Amino acid sequence: MKRLARLPGLGPRSARRAALALLKRQDTLLDPLIRTLETCRAQVRRCSVCGNLDATDPCAICSDGGRDGTSLCVVEEVEDLWAVERAGFFHGRYHVLGGRLSALDGIGPDELRIGEMLARVQAEGVQEVVLGLGATVEGQTTAHYIAERLQGLGVAVTGFGRGVPVGGELNFLDEGTLAAAYRARRPVG
Amino acid sequence: MKRLARLPGLGPRSARRAALALLKRQDTLLDPLIRTLETCRAQVRRCSVCGNLDATDPCAICSDGGRDGTSLCVVEEVEDLWAVERAGFFHGRYHVLGGRLSALDGIGPDELRIGEMLARVQAEGVQEVVLGLGATVEGQTTAHYIAERLQGLGVAVTGFGRGVPVGGELNFLDEGTLAAAYRARRPVG
Repeated sequence: MKRLARLPGLGPRSARRAALALLKRQDTLLDPLIRTLETCRAQVRRCSVCGNLDATDPCAICSDGGRDGTSLCVVEEVEDLWAVERAGFFHGRYHVLGGRLSALDGIGPDELRIGEMLARVQAEGVQEVVLGLGATVEGQTTAHYIAERLQGLGVAVTGFGRGVPVGGELNFLDEGTLAAAYRARRPVG
Repeated sequence: MKRLARLPGLGPRSARRAALALLKRQDTLLDPLIRTLETCRAQVRRCSVCGNLDATDPCAICSDGGRDGTSLCVVEEVEDLWAVERAGFFHGRYHVLGGRLSALDGIGPDELRIGEMLARVQAEGVQEVVLGLGATVEGQTTAHYIAERLQGLGVAVTGFGRGVPVGGELNFLDEGTLAAAYRARRPVG
């Protein structure tokens, strides 16, 4: 139960409910879950190219010859890769850093897969590196660090635009977002 | 109590708590509140120029000669005007529509202060109309309607940029926002 409570999104109360449900229905719930977790343990591995999680190495995206190799989207975590991929607008390849620079958490450039990224940019003929990093202080510190390291390699370095999220209403947005959205204003009509 | 519960953000339970607090402390809580509300009733009026709420008509923003008269920010409601003004990046003038086009709610162009806006654009020498409308279906319908009405008047019509809000992490954003942020990507470094 304590181990279930360690899962993100499960507090002590919901972990207790989940544990009881598993124990009450061992055949229909617990055993299938054990088997699925064992399969995951055996099959899912980290892609040695981009850092994605998949049953194959290289992952399905890296082995897909139809993707645009000139565009590389750099993200912090696997969940970010999946979010961008789910949205379906990006047809290039990815590179998962495995986190972001954080002085507080003691995460420096060597803790992230930045060296691997620089090697890929040069080896794979990348023309644009799209920094899909969070609009947080640490995400942006990471973005600027990477942009600096990419200088002189002859690739365009871009970052996701700032502004009003879809469905956003002005009076629920913070000052920073409103200011960024104003600076990024575009012709209408 | 039922009237208190009609205020946004107050449910029946919190309205009951507020009502009891007011009744228990009539001298220190109820009477001052009555006086403040009466002052508001007597003093706050709608600005006949822009639609803002203020103690003067025209409002403090419209009477401020230091504001840039060539830039007009069009918003849906007074709270949007206040949000943009609080952010402090905009130095032009405002125009409050009083809502947004909505077939569902039966709100057409005549229900909004669009005619007044067109008159102001021509009379005040406006060069850019910045549409600070929500990134919602209705907000964008309104934006396109206004852009159409402004065609041929020789003013630039812009809208707030779309993208990642400040503090936003990629895997918490919806597909539409991610796609918009990608399209609006900008050089970094």
